[in-house]
Amino acid sequence: MIQSTMQHGELSIARLVEYSRRVFPEAKIRTWTGTELRDISFAEVGDKAAQLANALAKLGVQRGDRVATFMWNNNEHQVAYAAVPAMGAVLHTLNLRLSPEQAVFIIKHAEDRVILVDASIAPMLSQYVAATPNVEHVIVVNGPASAFTAPDGVTVHQFDELIADEPTAYAWPQVDENDAAVMCYTSGTTGDPKGVVYSHRSIWLHSMQVCLPSGMALSNADSVLAIVPMFHVMSWGLPFAAMMSGITLIMPDRFLQPEPLLAIMAAGQPTFAAAVPTIWQGVAAQLDAVPQDISHLREVVVGGAAVPPSMIRKFDGYGVPIVHAWGMTETSPLGSVARPPFGVDDLDDEFAYRVTQGRFPASVEARLIADDGSEQPWDGEAVGELEVRGPWITGAYYSPDGPVSDPAKFHDGWLRTGDVASISADGFMTIVDRTKDLIKTGGEWISSVELENTVMSNPTIAEAAVVAVPDEKWDERPFVLAVVKDAADADIAKQREFLGGVVPRWQIPERWAFVAEVPKTSVGKFDKKVIRARYADGDYDVVESRD
Amino acid sequence: MIQSTMQHGELSIARLVEYSRRVFPEAKIRTWTGTELRDISFAEVGDKAAQLANALAKLGVQRGDRVATFMWNNNEHQVAYAAVPAMGAVLHTLNLRLSPEQAVFIIKHAEDRVILVDASIAPMLSQYVAATPNVEHVIVVNGPASAFTAPDGVTVHQFDELIADEPTAYAWPQVDENDAAVMCYTSGTTGDPKGVVYSHRSIWLHSMQVCLPSGMALSNADSVLAIVPMFHVMSWGLPFAAMMSGITLIMPDRFLQPEPLLAIMAAGQPTFAAAVPTIWQGVAAQLDAVPQDISHLREVVVGGAAVPPSMIRKFDGYGVPIVHAWGMTETSPLGSVARPPFGVDDLDDEFAYRVTQGRFPASVEARLIADDGSEQPWDGEAVGELEVRGPWITGAYYSPDGPVSDPAKFHDGWLRTGDVASISADGFMTIVDRTKDLIKTGGEWISSVELENTVMSNPTIAEAAVVAVPDEKWDERPFVLAVVKDAADADIAKQREFLGGVVPRWQIPERWAFVAEVPKTSVGKFDKKVIRARYADGDYDVVESRD
Repeated sequence: MIQSTMQHGELSIARLVEYSRRVFPEAKIRTWTGTELRDISFAEVGDKAAQLANALAKLGVQRGDRVATFMWNNNEHQVAYAAVPAMGAVLHTLNLRLSPEQAVFIIKHAEDRVILVDASIAPMLSQYVAATPNVEHVIVVNGPASAFTAPDGVTVHQFDELIADEPTAYAWPQVDENDAAVMCYTSGTTGDPKGVVYSHRSIWLHSMQVCLPSGMALSNADSVLAIVPMFHVMSWGLPFAAMMSGITLIMPDRFLQPEPLLAIMAAGQPTFAAAVPTIWQGVAAQLDAVPQDISHLREVVVGGAAVPPSMIRKFDGYGVPIVHAWGMTETSPLGSVARPPFGVDDLDDEFAYRVTQGRFPASVEARLIADDGSEQPWDGEAVGELEVRGPWITGAYYSPDGPVSDPAKFHDGWLRTGDVASISADGFMTIVDRTKDLIKTGGEWISSVELENTVMSNPTIAEAAVVAVPDEKWDERPFVLAVVKDAADADIAKQREFLGGVVPRWQIPERWAFVAEVPKTSVGKFDKKVIRARYADGDYDVVESRD
Repeated sequence: MIQSTMQHGELSIARLVEYSRRVFPEAKIRTWTGTELRDISFAEVGDKAAQLANALAKLGVQRGDRVATFMWNNNEHQVAYAAVPAMGAVLHTLNLRLSPEQAVFIIKHAEDRVILVDASIAPMLSQYVAATPNVEHVIVVNGPASAFTAPDGVTVHQFDELIADEPTAYAWPQVDENDAAVMCYTSGTTGDPKGVVYSHRSIWLHSMQVCLPSGMALSNADSVLAIVPMFHVMSWGLPFAAMMSGITLIMPDRFLQPEPLLAIMAAGQPTFAAAVPTIWQGVAAQLDAVPQDISHLREVVVGGAAVPPSMIRKFDGYGVPIVHAWGMTETSPLGSVARPPFGVDDLDDEFAYRVTQGRFPASVEARLIADDGSEQPWDGEAVGELEVRGPWITGAYYSPDGPVSDPAKFHDGWLRTGDVASISADGFMTIVDRTKDLIKTGGEWISSVELENTVMSNPTIAEAAVVAVPDEKWDERPFVLAVVKDAADADIAKQREFLGGVVPRWQIPERWAFVAEVPKTSVGKFDKKVIRARYADGDYDVVESRD
């Protein structure tokens, strides 16, 4: 055995902060104020990050302590992303869309000592912090300290005042690359939220993948509209990828409706954007009402939920290719990206690849496990639960007593994703369904996701969710909760007739309800748990037909 | 302190081999036979790699043992690149252009047990191996075993026969990502050759950088003409990058002259190519003689020596952007790449960035150290010796007794590159010279590299090297060794007149010699050590003029 002569070269967020600060003076973080973009250069982010680190150290923040953010995507959030992990503390991004119970649970579970909060949502946080004795300091950003009503034992600071007199340099500590850097709780459809803790190493490797041509293909030449929240799996890795590659980020702050998003695009001319399907659905509706050229976007990445094929065609029409990606909080999140393989020139063939969840990068190893525990082949047909492993995949969930690997979620060192998928012979993965969302009817399976997409491919439908509901004869049958664009189309006969030409007869749903909006989770996915519960409670006005 | 919940996810070559084999069936390795391309799919590379590993194991190769290659760039070399590190042994790529003394020194120093050799150059290796008792097995590739004359104690095998009956699967061992994977000796301008040993981790991280948009921007959509030899710093990382991203590689085998290279381009239509400047100089001369469309190349990366600006303009004329890169055997080699920053639209401004050595990636930390040991600012003017560190930079040289960090080459954990450079405020590095190639004249410095480029910008010059020679009055003065295209231009007055309009008067060289070829090192760089020695020995017919 001989030794490698390579240096170790610790992978660390501090290095990313200092690197981006020194090498990319032309790159910027730009935040929408409602009327314009306010810019901060990477050099200034570096200055402010050092100032914030100095201030936090004075407040007593030590290595490994949790510093939380309760913030929109904005310049100051980027400063926190840089400062907190670089100083050896752990950045904990709190989801703004949690229920009060979940928020209190998470703040206590993570033992956050400090929270940075946007003034506009400080009143909401005031309520939570009254119930979380572990919080010692709250720092109000983008507004006065008075926006936060402090319970006893909590000191309130105003961000700009707090950091104003601090030095713009900080002696970033040497870290072990496997140390904790960022934590994020899954929104979890069942049970308590679960914490995932990313390391300096996992973030570094993931940032490289985000920028790779097989990932989001980002470089210093890009300006990225980061719609996906910074509280949702590190905005899919964009804040750190930006530091690594000098990418300009455009931040929407709290302006997440289609109209302001299009105003931001007009002002910032981003080359790339990232968001969940529901956002793009809204943008498309607005574009149809008020046309605007968005072809400055060379690509948009869409993930977080399956992208309906009709949406891909719609955006092709705007001259903007949608790139479909798959991931989870547990996978940092970049798990797979759908880029057609080399040599596929036929548009239909290409489209067939684009609607899959795509290929895994080298760092994400995947396998399909059948109900009997056997591994399924990659033949494009056999399905199994998708299991993944690799350097940016979680191997456990956080607990104050150390990581916990629940066998329901982990299997011999692999993460059980809960997604049921097939993988083609050339490595393209297609999610058939969530394990719990498959519909078992008369011994046959229906994919609720596929059926949903088919229902939504009817132009009269604005959005629709499909869930399994009990059926005496068939065990389970699909139930459709649909939003129509025009009230006249809330007609079960018309809707069933459309499906008749597209899906096998036995799959056509008999039970429909037409509503104003489909319930969604805090991250914008259809909340099927809620839909099932309301159905069971008889809350929906269900129409039935077998004709 | 809390623990990260991330999996470790060992970075290993075995994972790259299995990944590429499974996920990229459409990607290929293609080798020029002299008349056509013979293709092998990544799946077949995987099969053969397993077969070779099984065969090597039977020959007694164990974890950490050195298995050398003495081969051109071809399909079988790629199989060795996959098999040897994946089985936990160390691939040692022998430079084909070594002197017999150097070759014998290196084979003994590395203690190679097995060598794979191309039949066409097996006779050369026969001579060396007679003097290297550590070699036990020689495997002849692309020809009969009889091409190699075995000294006593060496068993000869024929590659195809050796692996034919072996299984196409191998139980790749678990490695520590810091284990040795590949070794390569520097061609060294002074002293004995020095070995650099790359690890699984360093190769993995470097492969990601090769594929990044800030690196060579490579993906499954590319087909790369890998002219840079696989015995020269892992062909700049292309064989492993190909496994990571499903890049098709086109291998020239022994056909490295301009005519066959252009025939290969016509046949393979590569999207990208990589080679040293001297290769491109030859290709350009051939293209001028026999025009051919090479605009299928979306880019070529040129490194290994400074690229003359005139060459960049020349290739711009062919519709092929040259991307200038810098690296060394000690840096894996990707150290920096010259891509103009975002927002630079003016062609002249852009060009000023393209002729620099470029920006460092996040993984390569750089500083400039002045003669007095102080660190120089990044202001585009101050110069110092370039020192670098990071996860794919060597921290020592190989010795059988363990890595050795000679203080002449290493400084507080940084690699001393021997290059003298400046770095601009936006991170672009310009190499002024090698520490030993600066010309000190009358208290002023002349960069021999800059002067060389200027001399070569005269269209009458085919190639030219500039070295410092002793001068009674000025201490040192530049001496030009030039090759002219037309004998009539071997005229010192004409050449000096051209320079008169371009460089300060005091820099214009007085001493010239016109020759048929500039001596080059085994990797194609001007061999300034030889030029200085011949000058000192009075071997050149030097013309002198001060008019």
